[in-house]
This record gives sequence, C-alpha cells and structure tokens, in this order.
Amino acid sequence: MSSFAVPTTLAEYEASREDLILADRAQRADHKKGQLSKLEALADKVIRQVRAAEAASIWSLEYEGIPHPFPGMEFLTGRSIIVQTKLFEILGKMPKGGLLHAHLDATVNVSFLLKAAMKYPAVHVRASTALNATNIGSVLPEMSVLPQQLRTSSDITLTDHNYIPDTWVPMVKARESFDSQLGGPEGFDRWITAALTINPTEAYVTHNTVTKIWQKFASTFVVSAPLVRYEPIQREYIREFILSYIADGISYVEPRINFLRDAIPFIAEDGQRQLTHKEVLKDFQKVVDDVKAELKAQGREDEFIGAKIIYSTIRFITPEELEWYLRDCIALKKEFPHLIAGFDLVGDENVLKPLTYYLEPLLKFREMQKEAGVSEIPFIFHGGETLGDGTEADMNLYDAILLGTKRIGHGFSLVKHPKLIELCKERGIAIEVCPISNEILRLTSSMHMHPLPVLLNQGVSVALCSDDPSVFGNMGLTFDYFQVLAASEITGLIQLGEMAKDSIKFSSMEEEEKKDALAAWQKRWEVFLEYAASEGQKFLAQFEGMKVSG
Amino acid sequence: MSSFAVPTTLAEYEASREDLILADRAQRADHKKGQLSKLEALADKVIRQVRAAEAASIWSLEYEGIPHPFPGMEFLTGRSIIVQTKLFEILGKMPKGGLLHAHLDATVNVSFLLKAAMKYPAVHVRASTALNATNIGSVLPEMSVLPQQLRTSSDITLTDHNYIPDTWVPMVKARESFDSQLGGPEGFDRWITAALTINPTEAYVTHNTVTKIWQKFASTFVVSAPLVRYEPIQREYIREFILSYIADGISYVEPRINFLRDAIPFIAEDGQRQLTHKEVLKDFQKVVDDVKAELKAQGREDEFIGAKIIYSTIRFITPEELEWYLRDCIALKKEFPHLIAGFDLVGDENVLKPLTYYLEPLLKFREMQKEAGVSEIPFIFHGGETLGDGTEADMNLYDAILLGTKRIGHGFSLVKHPKLIELCKERGIAIEVCPISNEILRLTSSMHMHPLPVLLNQGVSVALCSDDPSVFGNMGLTFDYFQVLAASEITGLIQLGEMAKDSIKFSSMEEEEKKDALAAWQKRWEVFLEYAASEGQKFLAQFEGMKVSG
Repeated sequence: MSSFAVPTTLAEYEASREDLILADRAQRADHKKGQLSKLEALADKVIRQVRAAEAASIWSLEYEGIPHPFPGMEFLTGRSIIVQTKLFEILGKMPKGGLLHAHLDATVNVSFLLKAAMKYPAVHVRASTALNATNIGSVLPEMSVLPQQLRTSSDITLTDHNYIPDTWVPMVKARESFDSQLGGPEGFDRWITAALTINPTEAYVTHNTVTKIWQKFASTFVVSAPLVRYEPIQREYIREFILSYIADGISYVEPRINFLRDAIPFIAEDGQRQLTHKEVLKDFQKVVDDVKAELKAQGREDEFIGAKIIYSTIRFITPEELEWYLRDCIALKKEFPHLIAGFDLVGDENVLKPLTYYLEPLLKFREMQKEAGVSEIPFIFHGGETLGDGTEADMNLYDAILLGTKRIGHGFSLVKHPKLIELCKERGIAIEVCPISNEILRLTSSMHMHPLPVLLNQGVSVALCSDDPSVFGNMGLTFDYFQVLAASEITGLIQLGEMAKDSIKFSSMEEEEKKDALAAWQKRWEVFLEYAASEGQKFLAQFEGMKVSG
Repeated sequence: MSSFAVPTTLAEYEASREDLILADRAQRADHKKGQLSKLEALADKVIRQVRAAEAASIWSLEYEGIPHPFPGMEFLTGRSIIVQTKLFEILGKMPKGGLLHAHLDATVNVSFLLKAAMKYPAVHVRASTALNATNIGSVLPEMSVLPQQLRTSSDITLTDHNYIPDTWVPMVKARESFDSQLGGPEGFDRWITAALTINPTEAYVTHNTVTKIWQKFASTFVVSAPLVRYEPIQREYIREFILSYIADGISYVEPRINFLRDAIPFIAEDGQRQLTHKEVLKDFQKVVDDVKAELKAQGREDEFIGAKIIYSTIRFITPEELEWYLRDCIALKKEFPHLIAGFDLVGDENVLKPLTYYLEPLLKFREMQKEAGVSEIPFIFHGGETLGDGTEADMNLYDAILLGTKRIGHGFSLVKHPKLIELCKERGIAIEVCPISNEILRLTSSMHMHPLPVLLNQGVSVALCSDDPSVFGNMGLTFDYFQVLAASEITGLIQLGEMAKDSIKFSSMEEEEKKDALAAWQKRWEVFLEYAASEGQKFLAQFEGMKVSG
C-alpha cells in the first residue's frame, strides 16, 4: 500500500483534485487530442449549454404515455421527444465519418420499402389465416415475389372471411382492399410495419428479455428479406440507403450483407431466377458508382467516399457449410477486390453457435485466401453482444481476438475483460458500439447504464453504429450520437468528433482513401463547428428570453 | 501495434486460448488464490452444478405475475422464487464474514419492529386524514412516542369517519380497531409495512427512476425513525439485528448510525427525554457485550467477533453544522474508542450536497482528532452511487479518495474511472458493493447488468453488503451473495469465499481481531464446504432421478 498524504489546505486540495481528474481522463480521445482551437472550444461549450438547457426544459415536461422522460432514456419511447430537440437538429448536420456496423437489409425506413414494394407486380403477400380484429396483432405477413406464371388475379383478399390460408395475394391488391374495419390501406401498412419493426410494448413489456426480443428481432428479417432481396427493389433500397445516410452526414458505409444460399435468396426481376452473389455485388457496386458520379457532378464528392461490404452468414450453419461460405467470400473477393472488406458470423450469440464451434474452417481461412491469390480478407466478428459472464457469448471475445479480428461488433461485455481491452488497444482493434441497438435488444435499460464510458475512459477506439435502423427507428447515425451525448456530462462535441474520425481510421478503406476521407471530414467538421456554435447560441438566446423570472 | 500471429493449428489455438483466459482472469481473487484443495474444488463444482440445474428447472417454470423469471432477475419480483431454491438454502449456511455497509435503522425485518412497537404504550400513530379504501394507498402513517401526559384514551381511531386529522392514537388501539373493511389488524400491519418497504410496483413502475425511488426510499426512514429510536425498542432492535445476522452466517457488523440531532432524536423510555449520543452508543455496546457473553456461554464465540459503528450524518446540512457532527463523532470516539470505526455522509448523492461542498470542515477533521487526542477516525464515504457520468455524484469518487477514505460505499460508477481503480488497488480501498440495493434503487435492472464483474476482474477488493434490508427484503447477506452467484458462470463458491474474507480484512477491526476473525472464519468455511458438497450432491441426485428421459 503506497503512502500518500491527504492535502491539508484548500489550495493544495484543489490542485491535487485537478491533477487526479486529468490523470483519470487522460486516455480519453477528447483528452488525448490536446489543446482545442478557439472554434472547437466555443462549439463544445455552446453544445454543452444546449444540452443542459434542454435537460431542464423539454426533457422535464409532462408527456402523455411517458411517465419518466429524461435525456438518454429508452429510445423507442424517447424518440418522439428526441426529434423535437435542438440538440438533435444540430447533430443532424454533423459529419459522422463512416458507418461500420449496419446490416444492409435493415438500413432503410420501412415506409420506403413498402412504397417500393407497391411498384412491382411480382410482390405478393399471404397470411396463415384470414385476418380479423382479434388476430391481426399476432398473425405475421409473409411476403414473396412470384414469377409471372404463379401470379393470381383472384378477388379474395387477406381480410375476407373466406380467404384461403396461405394463398398469395398481390401486394397492391392486398393493400387496396384491406378491410376498412382494420384500417383500410393504412391499416395494411401498419400491419406490415409492425412485422418489420420493434415497438415499445415489445421491447419494454412483452418481450422484455434478451431471448424474447431476439425472437421478435430475427422475425423482422424473415419478413423483410423477400422484399429487400428482390433485385429491382434491392437496387432502389441500396440507393436510398446510401443517399439518406449521406444526408445524415455519413461519408462511408461498410454494411454487412447476409448470405444464406437458398434460404434467403436474391431474386431477379422475373420473380424466379436466383441471382448469383456476383450479380448482387455488381448491383451494389453500380449503385455506389452511380451515386459517386452524381455527387461529383454536383461538386459534392467530399460527401461520399465510398462503400465496402462485410460478407456475413448466420451462426447456425455447420462447420462444413461455413467452409462453403468462406470459399464463396474468397471468390467474390477475387471478382471485387475493393468491395469485400471482411467476413463475419451473425445471429444471437446467446443461443446460436459460438466461434469455437467453427474453429477448423476459420483457422483455414487465411491459407485458403493465399491459395486463391486474393489480398487479405480480415475477420470482422460480432463478439460479446451479451449480458453473460463466462458464457459462450461472452467468451466469443477471446476467439474473435485470437482469430485476429480487425474490429469487434458490439463488444458489449468487453468491459469485463481487462486483458482483452489491453489487446484491443495494442492491436488497434476498434469496437463497433451500437448504443440504441444494445438498449432495444435488452442489454441495458437506458443510455446511462450503457458501459460505453468504461471503454472511452480506457482509451479504447470506438466507432458509433446504428446496427439495424429500419427495425429500431434510428436511421443514419444521428440518433446514436444523440444518445451518447445526452447521457454524459463529460462527453461533448469533441469526443463525438474523435469517434467520427475513428470510424474512418478503423474502416477498411485503403490508407490513401482514409487520408482523403479524413481531410474531407476535417473540412466539413470546421463548417459544422461554426454552425453548431451559431445555431446553439441562437437557441440559447431565445431560450433565455423565454425564461420566466424567479 | 504489436505484431502477433493467429495460431494455425487447433492445438496451438487451444493452448493460446487457455493462456489468454488465464491472463484475462489473473487479477480475480479466486484466480489469485492459487491451487484449490480437494474439498474446495469439489464444493465449487457441486455448487456450479446446482446453479445450472436450478437455472434449467425452477427458474424455467411459469409463474403467475412473473412473465420473465431468470436467476439474477430484479429482486423484488424474484425473491419469492429465490427462497425456494436449493442454492439459497445452501448459501444460508455460508459464513459471510463481516457486514460493512448497512444502515442500522433498516436492518431488521419490519414485522419484528411492528411487534416490538405493540409492547410499549408510548407508541402512537396518526394520519393526515381519516383512512378509507380510496386513500389508504397514499396516506402515510406517522408514528411517534408520547410522554405519559400526552397519551390519550379516546375511542376514535384512524379509520373512523370522524377521526380528527393528525390526532395521535395509541398504536395498539389503532391496530385493534382498524376497520375490517380495510383488513382489520392485518390491514393495519399492511398499511404500516407499505410505508416501511419498497414494493415491486414502486420500484419497477410508478417510481422507476433514481430520483423517484429515492423519494420513496427516504420516506421509509422518516416513518421508521421514531420507532427504531425509542430506547426500549432500539435495544430489542439492535439485539435482533445482531442475532438474526449471526444466524445468517455474519460474524462482524459495522453499521452506519445516522445522527441528525433534534431532527431524528433518540428518545428515552419516558417517551420524552432525548437520549444523548453517548447513551445510544452505551446501549449499543451493552447489546453487543450481552450477545458476546451469551454466545461464549454456549461455546459459540467464533460466530460473533464484534461490532463497530460508522458515524453518519445527512448531506443536506451546512458545512458549519457538519463541523458540529465531526466534533460530536470525536467526543464519542473519546468515550468509545473501540466502537467508533469511521465517519460518513449519506443521502441521495444525485440531489443533495457533494463532498466538495464540505471540504473545509472535512479537511480539518484529522487535525481536530489530533488536538482531541483520539486515535484516527477514518472517513468511510459513500461515493459514486449514481448513473451520472461527470456529474457531482460521479465525481464524489475523486473527493472520497483524495480525502483518504478507508473504503467506498457502493462505488457504483467507479468502473468508469481507470485511475481511481488503480488507486483503490494500490491503497487497499475496498468497495462496499450493494447489488440488491443498486438494482432496487434503479441503478441497474438486473444482476446481469450490474458492473460488479468489471471490478472483480480488475482485482479490486469487494465486500458484499445489503445496505437497507428492512426496506428491500434482503435481510442478512445471503440474498446479495445469491444474486452475485446466480448471475455469473465464472463466479463460484471460491470467489464468494474470497469476498467474505475481504469483508474481514478490510473491516475496521484491529489487526489482532482480524487474525482471529479470519481463523474462526476459515474453520467455519471448511465445515460449510463439506455441507455444500454433500447437500448439493444429495440435491443433484434427487434432481437427476426426477428427470424424464429424452
């Protein structure tokens, strides 16, 4: 036990206290940054004041149906307040860097997907039974594209009492003729939307455990896949993904695309032929190239550097099947060397297979790459997305790191692993932290309970990510940045900026691309700081004016 | 970035994995312990099997009113299942070491307090209005002792429609004549009990924020104080505290006693005279001495080493008032040098004053002690009992440590402070972790979300504590030990034993007393291990016999 003296004078004490606080925060990115510029200091201060002002105003009002509002509260309930805040408005304009953890099939607003679906006669829907007021809350829609020859022209639709269970109905018709007692076309939209999203009652009441919420969560992908993977819709979807995320300030995306062969196929326009994976990537690349060309023509090339894909498959397959997917990934890497960024296994770590189950094929992957003559495809594994302590899911973190993972998806339980934290820092393994996802999927109850500060304060590199925005409602990255900012008195604009930079530094871009991306980001950041400072000050001035004296 | 190679063969990989896990857990007390004895290994293994068996059986059943049962679940709802488990039964016999964090006024079962209250004619109760079915859920009882001359003999009681608000009624009479429509005497008991405890609806629905639950929490002390601080009751109360906690395997207690001069006075038997603080401590010491003598006569001296008191006051007083309490504490130390263990400030850190508010008097304390010629009275501060990140409550941790605190009460937000964790380890500052308290007071939603593993895995010394059992329902320490054991696959009996030992090592006992206490504990531990192994094996055998094949 080291000897130490309790300061005796107030002056001595204050000095020791300052030193201790600095020493304690020394590993934080916003502290390692060093001296702030005048603009940075001003914007940072103003945003803190806006945060404090709104904590005492809009977050302290009474809201019907929201008994305990507070900044950083559970997202599905708090969202309606968040979007009314000035903080959210300002953060919307922040250049976010890269989005490194998002599942492509869940990136675009459900309403866009629905509208797109209406445009294609191949899209059909069915249900296991005729829908009525009693069962509409529990019967899931099943959607699919049908080839010409299987399309029907029957007049009977889902809400007819004589609907024959499991009969396909053209989507447009199903919507048009949805019983007015069940809400008509809007009722149809709500029915489909409910199957594609998680609502507050599900997250916070009926499915309020990790296992139950994952069951609901996984079901949304089963429902959406046939739509999202229909080639004409997928092209629109990818385009909308990229464009809307650019609008949110994101300049690079690295989505995970799930491959599961025949189980979740990609279907060509004819509603029948399965696309090859090469065709899927070709479509993806074309959308990316088109968007880049369009932005260049508008003089906006700085707003979008590009995109890469993390090839993922689901952790319930056998090790033999995994080997097929590893080979498939290599084949795609050969064809699209700059598009394939890495390989991952996804799905509920708590109930599906751990990484150890797949060791044999995973240990062969590097060798397979060399034999095929492709440049390295790193693993970018999900790991530790769990509350377990010593469970298989928790211990996936050991294997992710031993297998040389480039980054870790979620890493929620990483905070319990001092040696692994040390290795992540040593080896430059950034953590793809998904705050809103973690809360909705019941790993934490509010942003204040999220372990993110434990990582930040130990100097672990963190990229903020939204994971599955269409299911959660956190499109883009602004919502996740908001939650992190709202729930802390230490984290401010500067820390957010460092995380945006890390999302570029730890992306899979080439070193040259990263340099350009960082330079482009820096320019936009300076513009943003000016805006944040002036917009914030304007808000604070009005706010002061509105305060009643006393 | 250090270079490292991904193991290529399975054998290499397994070896690296083993090494990594050991390195990662190296700072845990159960890993630093070294080689286990045969008995330790057996008992540890059996208990893990019992835990696993019950996770799959009793915790997987359907329970009315408990939609999501699981081991480590929210305590107020899970308690009814916990008490049915074999794990809880076995842990009840575990020697727990010392209880280092408990508030004396909240240590004994409410039913005991009620029964005691019935014995003394001085005890009276009143309400702000006549009680009826509509208001009984919201009108709080106010209890007090009255001197002879103020006691009434009126026949009108609380549930009479013509009860005059705020009129004192003798407790016995109020109970006897409680309207049968409101449950009669049992209804009266329920009414009083509700005001002295937190129920699931309060914690998990109506008061489901830190601020709101603290309001309910604080109110229970206002209601109980006049009873608990009535000398005849207090003597019984302290005795029951010590005896029932000994029955729970606890051999040393260091309760906090709150002093707030006239606001929460200690009243003599006549129901009028205020006891001096010396008299209170004299009563406490006598009970301790009586119990020790009784146990010695029964040959059970190993079961109770002794007790000390942490002098506490509430963090809403002024710095000038604090100086009075510091002097009072010194005066009591002079009179009872072996009874006073330390000094603390208590109350909701999130809304009351931070330690910095009291720096002047706190910095003078050591000097005041030297001038008075007493041996050292260390600070033993509450600190960081909060979800705040950079808030005053979070930053109390800096001040607690700078002021030389011997231990930290709660230290919930300590996990966010790498430098402070380092200092706690260097300086031998143990953390008084109160898992059930933290969950009920809304810092966490379940044991799985509690940050305790972060501390254990970094080798911070932890003593498990129950804090306010009469309010929470976690009498003794078995419930808190249960929650910790149930929510982890890594923590087992050995880690629990190390925490029990730390509760002795980091107590305020003299070095010689600690040696004796540890030796006594060790003997009891060996007996407990035998019992745990055999009882557990018996349970598992029956359990296996009951399993249906397939």
